[in-house]
Amino acid sequence: MGIAIGAGIAVSIAGLGGGVGMGIAGGKAFEAIARQPEIGGDVRTLLFITFAFIETLTIYGLLIAFMLVGKI
Amino acid sequence: MGIAIGAGIAVSIAGLGGGVGMGIAGGKAFEAIARQPEIGGDVRTLLFITFAFIETLTIYGLLIAFMLVGKI
Amino acid sequence: MGIAIGAGIAVSIAGLGGGVGMGIAGGKAFEAIARQPEIGGDVRTLLFITFAFIETLTIYGLLIAFMLVGKI
Amino acid sequence: MGIAIGAGIAVSIAGLGGGVGMGIAGGKAFEAIARQPEIGGDVRTLLFITFAFIETLTIYGLLIAFMLVGKI
Amino acid sequence: MGIAIGAGIAVSIAGLGGGVGMGIAGGKAFEAIARQPEIGGDVRTLLFITFAFIETLTIYGLLIAFMLVGKI
Amino acid sequence: MGIAIGAGIAVSIAGLGGGVGMGIAGGKAFEAIARQPEIGGDVRTLLFITFAFIETLTIYGLLIAFMLVGKI
Amino acid sequence: MGIAIGAGIAVSIAGLGGGVGMGIAGGKAFEAIARQPEIGGDVRTLLFITFAFIETLTIYGLLIAFMLVGKI
Amino acid sequence: MGIAIGAGIAVSIAGLGGGVGMGIAGGKAFEAIARQPEIGGDVRTLLFITFAFIETLTIYGLLIAFMLVGKI
Amino acid sequence: MGIAIGAGIAVSIAGLGGGVGMGIAGGKAFEAIARQPEIGGDVRTLLFITFAFIETLTIYGLLIAFMLVGKI
Amino acid sequence: MGIAIGAGIAVSIAGLGGGVGMGIAGGKAFEAIARQPEIGGDVRTLLFITFAFIETLTIYGLLIAFMLVGKI
Amino acid sequence: MGIAIGAGIAVSIAGLGGGVGMGIAGGKAFEAIARQPEIGGDVRTLLFITFAFIETLTIYGLLIAFMLVGKI
Amino acid sequence: MGIAIGAGIAVSIAGLGGGVGMGIAGGKAFEAIARQPEIGGDVRTLLFITFAFIETLTIYGLLIAFMLVGKI
Amino acid sequence: MGIAIGAGIAVSIAGLGGGVGMGIAGGKAFEAIARQPEIGGDVRTLLFITFAFIETLTIYGLLIAFMLVGKI
Amino acid sequence: MGIAIGAGIAVSIAGLGGGVGMGIAGGKAFEAIARQPEIGGDVRTLLFITFAFIETLTIYGLLIAFMLVGKI
Repeated sequence: MGIAIGAGIAVSIAGLGGGVGMGIAGGKAFEAIARQPEIGGDVRTLLFITFAFIETLTIYGLLIAFMLVGKI
Repeated sequence: MGIAIGAGIAVSIAGLGGGVGMGIAGGKAFEAIARQPEIGGDVRTLLFITFAFIETLTIYGLLIAFMLVGKI
Repeated sequence: MGIAIGAGIAVSIAGLGGGVGMGIAGGKAFEAIARQPEIGGDVRTLLFITFAFIETLTIYGLLIAFMLVGKI
Repeated sequence: MGIAIGAGIAVSIAGLGGGVGMGIAGGKAFEAIARQPEIGGDVRTLLFITFAFIETLTIYGLLIAFMLVGKI
Repeated sequence: MGIAIGAGIAVSIAGLGGGVGMGIAGGKAFEAIARQPEIGGDVRTLLFITFAFIETLTIYGLLIAFMLVGKI
Repeated sequence: MGIAIGAGIAVSIAGLGGGVGMGIAGGKAFEAIARQPEIGGDVRTLLFITFAFIETLTIYGLLIAFMLVGKI
Repeated sequence: MGIAIGAGIAVSIAGLGGGVGMGIAGGKAFEAIARQPEIGGDVRTLLFITFAFIETLTIYGLLIAFMLVGKI
Repeated sequence: MGIAIGAGIAVSIAGLGGGVGMGIAGGKAFEAIARQPEIGGDVRTLLFITFAFIETLTIYGLLIAFMLVGKI
Repeated sequence: MGIAIGAGIAVSIAGLGGGVGMGIAGGKAFEAIARQPEIGGDVRTLLFITFAFIETLTIYGLLIAFMLVGKI
Repeated sequence: MGIAIGAGIAVSIAGLGGGVGMGIAGGKAFEAIARQPEIGGDVRTLLFITFAFIETLTIYGLLIAFMLVGKI
Repeated sequence: MGIAIGAGIAVSIAGLGGGVGMGIAGGKAFEAIARQPEIGGDVRTLLFITFAFIETLTIYGLLIAFMLVGKI
Repeated sequence: MGIAIGAGIAVSIAGLGGGVGMGIAGGKAFEAIARQPEIGGDVRTLLFITFAFIETLTIYGLLIAFMLVGKI
Repeated sequence: MGIAIGAGIAVSIAGLGGGVGMGIAGGKAFEAIARQPEIGGDVRTLLFITFAFIETLTIYGLLIAFMLVGKI
Repeated sequence: MGIAIGAGIAVSIAGLGGGVGMGIAGGKAFEAIARQPEIGGDVRTLLFITFAFIETLTIYGLLIAFMLVGKI
């Protein structure tokens, strides 16, 4: 039983931070492009890398959650 | 029993962060378009990608929640 | 019993973030329209898409809540 | 017993976010109208749509709460 | 017993958000009127509609609370 | 026992939000009057209506609390 | 036992919000008077009314607390 | 036992909000006096009234705490 | 046992708010003196009164804590 | 057992607020001195008094903690 | 059982802070590039190093989570 | 058992506030020195005194923690 | 069992603060470099030292977590 | 068991505050250097002292955690 709660915590709490963080980063990227449209490509590449790094934080949680679900 | 609470946590807490994050990103996008209307297409594409990345964070939680619900 | 609490958590916590996020996005849209009335149509379309994406986050929770309620 | 707590959580936590979100959106709408009175009709329509979307988030919780209350 | 706690949660947590939200919306309305006194009537109508929408969020909770109190 | 805790929650948590909300609305009203003293009457009327609406949110909680106290 | 905790919650949580709200309203009143000393009387009257409304929120909690204490 | 926790909550949580609120109000009063030294007397009177109102919120909690302590 | 936790809560939570509130009030006082050095005496008197009022909030908690400790 | 937790709460939660409050007050004092170096002595005296008042809030908690530790 | 909750906490809470932190750092990087496009390479290198350091904080948690999962 | 948790709380929660407070005070000191480099010595002395006062708040907690650990 | 939760807390809560702190420090570093590109080397060195100090805070937690895991 | 949780709390909660505090102090230091590069050495020395003081807060927690771990 506690395993399911552990899996739920593992997969969602990092996602909470990740969702807010991606929103902040994405929002700042729009501002940056609006101020200097010619750096659009540069910002887009960096934004994807930022998203990828934040995504990994949740993937770790997903990994642990899968392992925990397999043990119920 | 604990499994249901785990499923509820898994599907909703990441969604909490995602909802706030999407709101921040979307709001900044409107600002950016209002300041530089001609970059509207560029911002729209980036906004969808941002939403897609944030959406995946909740999809992971939905996945774990489905797996947990199947075990009750 | 725990199932009902799980269902309550699943349907409402994502809605908490969604409500705040929609409020932020909607408020920024009014600002953007007030600054540049001629982009009203563009902002309105984007706002609906933003609302739709945020709505899906809560729909996932509603889905899990329905499945949990069906098991009480 | 836990069912009643689940119903209480389902109907009220989304309403917490919705109340704050509506307040933010409504407040920004007044600002926008004060800055550009002639866009009053446009903002009013968008504001109602924003309220409707936020309202749905709580309606989902109300739905689950009704279903849970029916099972006590 | 748990039913009473559920009823207390249902009627008050949405009211928490509603009270803060109404305060924010009302405060912004005063600002808007102070900046453009001639739009007073327009803002007043919108403010009442905003209050009515926020009020409904708490009414839902009151409804569930009544139903729960009737089952103690 | 749990009934008393439910009554305490019902009457006080909405009051928490209401107290903060009234403080924000009242404070903004003073600012508005200081900026445009001639709209004092208009703001005062709106402020009372705002207070009345916020008050109702707590009255609902008081109602539920009375009903719960009567059942101990 | 739980009755005492319920009474403690009822009398103090609304007071928490009320204390912060009164502080915000009072502080804004000083600002308003410093900007326009001649509206001092008008602001003072409104401030007392604001305090009275916030005070009632705590009085409700005090009422419930008295009723609960009488049942221990 | 629970009675002591109830008494502790009753006397301290309102004091938490009161301490923060008094600090905000007091700090704003210093600002107001620094901007307009000649209104010092007016602000001092209002500040004491603000403190007195906030103080009453904690006094209510103290009252309930005394009544609870007398029942251990 | 619960009595000790009640005493700990009574003496420290109000102190938490008091510490933050005193810090805010004190910090604003330094700002006010830096802007208008000649009102230093006036501010110092008011600051002490502010501290005294905030102090009383914690003293109430200390009082209840002493009474509770005497009952272990 | 609960006594130790009570002692831990008593000595540390007020210290949490005190630490933040001292940091805010100290930081503002540096700002004030940087803006008006000649009032350095005046600010330093007031800062020590502020620290002394905040310190007392924690001393009360320490006192209760000592009394509680003596009873384990 | 508690082991699974421990693993869930270990892998996700650091990820929560990391997601928000990466979002803040990434967002500031876009701003910096928008203000001075010619330092893009310098900022990109530093951003990756920042991400790597934040990533390690979650890796530690992942490590402990793996060790805990292996003991269920 | 509870004694260890009490010791952990005693030594760390005040440290949480102290860490944030020292960071705020230290950061403001750098700002002050950057604005008026010639007051560096004055600020440094005050900063050390601020740190010493904040440090004492944690030392109290450490003291109680030592006393509690000695009783396990 | 409790040991695993203790290990999870030890390794992740400090990491939460560290992730946010590194994000703030890193973000400010980009701003500083964008304003004065020629101090890039100086800032980079200081940034690494800041990261190293923050990293140690989590290493302590990792150390305790390892010791706890070895005792399950 | 509770001992492990106590050790986890002791070593990590102070580290949470320390991580955020170091991030704030470090970030402000970069700003200060960017505004006045010639005070770099002065700021660097003060920054290390700030970090050292914050570090001690966590060291106290580490100390208690070691003592607690030795008693499992």
